[in-house]
Amino acid sequence: MSNERLIYLPLGGAGEIGMNTYVYGWGAPGKERLILADIGVTFPDMDGSPGVDIIMADIEWLVERADRIEGIFITHAHEDHVGAVGHLWDQLKAPVYARAFTGHHARRKIEEYGHNPETVRITPAWPEQVEAGPFKVGFAPISHSIPESSALIIDTPAGRIVHTGDFKLDETPLVGEPFDEGFWRGIGKEGVHALVCDSTNVFSPLPGRSEASVGPEIVKLVRDAPGMVVATTFASNVARVKTLADAGVEAGRSICLLGRAMRRMIEAAVLTGVVTDFPKTISPEEAEEIPRQNVMLLVTGSQGERRAASAALSRGKYLGLELAEGDTFLFSSKTIPGNEKGVIRVMNALSEKGVDVVDDSSNLYHVSGHANRPDLERMHEIIQPKMVIPMHGEHRHLREHAKFAAAKGMGAILAVNGSMVDLTGDVPDIVEYVEAGRTYLDGKIKIGALDGIVRDRIRMAMNGHVIVSVVMEDDEMLGEPWVDLMGLPEIGMSGAPLSDVLEEDLSQLIGRSTRTTRSDDDDLEDDIRKTVRKSADDEIGKKPEVTVVISRLS
Amino acid sequence: MSNERLIYLPLGGAGEIGMNTYVYGWGAPGKERLILADIGVTFPDMDGSPGVDIIMADIEWLVERADRIEGIFITHAHEDHVGAVGHLWDQLKAPVYARAFTGHHARRKIEEYGHNPETVRITPAWPEQVEAGPFKVGFAPISHSIPESSALIIDTPAGRIVHTGDFKLDETPLVGEPFDEGFWRGIGKEGVHALVCDSTNVFSPLPGRSEASVGPEIVKLVRDAPGMVVATTFASNVARVKTLADAGVEAGRSICLLGRAMRRMIEAAVLTGVVTDFPKTISPEEAEEIPRQNVMLLVTGSQGERRAASAALSRGKYLGLELAEGDTFLFSSKTIPGNEKGVIRVMNALSEKGVDVVDDSSNLYHVSGHANRPDLERMHEIIQPKMVIPMHGEHRHLREHAKFAAAKGMGAILAVNGSMVDLTGDVPDIVEYVEAGRTYLDGKIKIGALDGIVRDRIRMAMNGHVIVSVVMEDDEMLGEPWVDLMGLPEIGMSGAPLSDVLEEDLSQLIGRSTRTTRSDDDDLEDDIRKTVRKSADDEIGKKPEVTVVISRLS
Repeated sequence: MSNERLIYLPLGGAGEIGMNTYVYGWGAPGKERLILADIGVTFPDMDGSPGVDIIMADIEWLVERADRIEGIFITHAHEDHVGAVGHLWDQLKAPVYARAFTGHHARRKIEEYGHNPETVRITPAWPEQVEAGPFKVGFAPISHSIPESSALIIDTPAGRIVHTGDFKLDETPLVGEPFDEGFWRGIGKEGVHALVCDSTNVFSPLPGRSEASVGPEIVKLVRDAPGMVVATTFASNVARVKTLADAGVEAGRSICLLGRAMRRMIEAAVLTGVVTDFPKTISPEEAEEIPRQNVMLLVTGSQGERRAASAALSRGKYLGLELAEGDTFLFSSKTIPGNEKGVIRVMNALSEKGVDVVDDSSNLYHVSGHANRPDLERMHEIIQPKMVIPMHGEHRHLREHAKFAAAKGMGAILAVNGSMVDLTGDVPDIVEYVEAGRTYLDGKIKIGALDGIVRDRIRMAMNGHVIVSVVMEDDEMLGEPWVDLMGLPEIGMSGAPLSDVLEEDLSQLIGRSTRTTRSDDDDLEDDIRKTVRKSADDEIGKKPEVTVVISRLS
Repeated sequence: MSNERLIYLPLGGAGEIGMNTYVYGWGAPGKERLILADIGVTFPDMDGSPGVDIIMADIEWLVERADRIEGIFITHAHEDHVGAVGHLWDQLKAPVYARAFTGHHARRKIEEYGHNPETVRITPAWPEQVEAGPFKVGFAPISHSIPESSALIIDTPAGRIVHTGDFKLDETPLVGEPFDEGFWRGIGKEGVHALVCDSTNVFSPLPGRSEASVGPEIVKLVRDAPGMVVATTFASNVARVKTLADAGVEAGRSICLLGRAMRRMIEAAVLTGVVTDFPKTISPEEAEEIPRQNVMLLVTGSQGERRAASAALSRGKYLGLELAEGDTFLFSSKTIPGNEKGVIRVMNALSEKGVDVVDDSSNLYHVSGHANRPDLERMHEIIQPKMVIPMHGEHRHLREHAKFAAAKGMGAILAVNGSMVDLTGDVPDIVEYVEAGRTYLDGKIKIGALDGIVRDRIRMAMNGHVIVSVVMEDDEMLGEPWVDLMGLPEIGMSGAPLSDVLEEDLSQLIGRSTRTTRSDDDDLEDDIRKTVRKSADDEIGKKPEVTVVISRLS
């Protein structure tokens, strides 16, 4: 008997929605040849990661085994699947495989870091397969909200894995390949060992609706709108952007794309041939010249991002264009949890301009790109896998998905980031826990989520920062302690300046300290810190962060 | 002709949902006698107000006219209506009027600041009226989600104002007085000059549902739950807490209240007589002793607050109680925008414990406390006011509400915080803009939102903080510059410690600076700050905040 095994190890994406990074391996334990499915990012927020630019999976485990990586396969061009390929490629240096549209994006990211874009190998769709060590990997078209989304068909010595990537069952997706039940039944008929499956919408009880249901509603809306119409959605949702543009044209309007991501994404779609009949667009300058009821702007910023076109238009003029009373602004998008306040800020700023805002609360102008619960059940039924491994979801999504797969008699396991699952036999089994965390891209530097850097930022933001400077000569203080405040009120409860109170208390502290304390930086610093925190708490009811600078002249 | 006038001036609550603070005045311009309707708070967040404890309206305008305030009238005991009465009373020192349950809360808040609780005068409901200078003010019971909610009927020399406070049209609210259409028609029949009206749910297109619709669904849920049931809602939603408790009892369970706010609120409701038949509750110790399928916990923390009972239970043991596989956790509440991530965090932690989470996505277990659009239309029709002034809403809510009131032929005006509206004549008219802002309670200190303190905190959180210390004697530097980092990576792109790089660059800077610069603190500081920001940008791709401490020995 061989002791070779098939492993699955999510490093990102299992236990969260974002930074998808899944490892598969085949071989003797500790010697598995590896492939990576996706390498995405997630986004920082002020609550947990202030100042951070991008969040990626901690790939330490993979970097230590970089010589065993046969390839990196990217399912589609969403940032949570491809976003880290530029930032992390240097540490992995394995060939990257993707279809044309996805590969176009991956190449640009790799180029930005000065690497050879040809390391991204543009791969045709199934039935073509890439040989990657013990694996044969094919890109099987599946419908989602971006062109050329693909599931990975991974043939292994232990059987076939279907790694769905993100998907929905859309037979009329308008852009990209329709969901083809017959095709997937064929994939299933050959026997599927494991279905590693998107779980995002497991709590949505009704079957998902097709992209094709959105267009007619948007046409009605645009046709009835008296002024300019602005619509926003994710730029990467090429089908939606096209639906919006077509609706605008049908309603007699000229289309203008605003926002870099929006223009780039459509350019890439045209360049790679995934969209062939996008309507002619006009420039912002041209849009300014024609009557506003003949214009439709398609803009970035559906999540309320402060720097995107939506927010800019809500605040004032943007590239010469300005919204006015009677204009209509359509959010053809869902607000991702955590972005609500930003979106509401934009909506209210638009309201101040007299613009009518239409959001997705009516369910008419947006459909999700993910399979709902009945769709997941249908997919299980079509594929008939031996086991289901839920991915792409928070813990609650994975748990719910595993529960109903198990209830239908399939093997199922709840494996979160860092759980190494042995898939070799008939039943999935967690065999090891690997350290799985997050890496922050902070400016140009990669820092660990637990390095303490971001924790210090949060503490300064919550508590303010007191800087104490003391000059010592031998064991005597020269002059008086000096206090600077940052992020703290100037006047405390006593009515005196807080810095004066702290300086006075520190003078007294040092005055009555022992020579031994004054000679020892650590002791002195410790005493100073305690005094500052206590005095500040009395004066302002807060215990600030304290930095003590002791300059010793000798 | 008299030149006396009736004014309305929102200082908080108009252009936001929160910190309701509305001024009415009657008299010659600049000499109006004033009353205040509500004095509430809103809550800080990490994005905009890190470290802040509570946000209140900036009442500067009112403080300058404190001698003209006849009274402060509190419509109900929600924090966004009564929350600032303790923090701000000292600056106003006017009598506070409220009904018993609301007054109970107001008194506790006033007592916390060491003032006499008797300044809160417990006032019977309509037809009783309080004479307050030129005004006669009555508390007219109206249904909402907390006991004894009242609209204010304000009779003025220019006619009657109905200030709705928060309300819904619930004829079976279970706790508190049912909405009584006949009563309100009576109020309207006497002629209403202005309806100043809640706008929260103006975008909800269907009529609101009664609190009574929730109970039967909860009974079903609790009865079918195999393990322990935990339910959370706002503690102040006494009707819901009672509905939940009654459902638990009906399903054969003992009820245990967890979380200070939950216990206090029910105690206050019993004490003031607004609830007479709350089921007997058991202590956490008792709950531990009985089989888990016989227990129902009612807990605080429906918004995912980290320190509340819900979050504590999701993390581990709380007061001896611990959740387990097969337990059920019900969110009988709506998530307020901005709190999604916190709520999701709790849900996932519960999922890790194997607890089944039920939220309000089914619309079965929660109803709103505010009037939906058809309810608002019905209220307009019942009251038949000369004019409608929308309040209690973001800009978009006020705008929508004003639009449809105007469309029905009523006078309507969109007046946001700081807009002084002359209500004297037939048509409302904005006559002045008053500086209206926000005051933060930060620890023990009140700071202005625009003081720069919180801005500095946000900057430190986004950019990190570099502290540079230099000791100078006359115009010569003693020793070398010293750099401390807070919230910044230790190693930069060059591979050297960031502090070393900065110290080296600063040494060079000071070495080549002119004697004039070295003698001038401002010039030297300026040069140091620029150098640090530039060098840090090169090394780590961030421009940090910089504090420069120059110690001069002489």
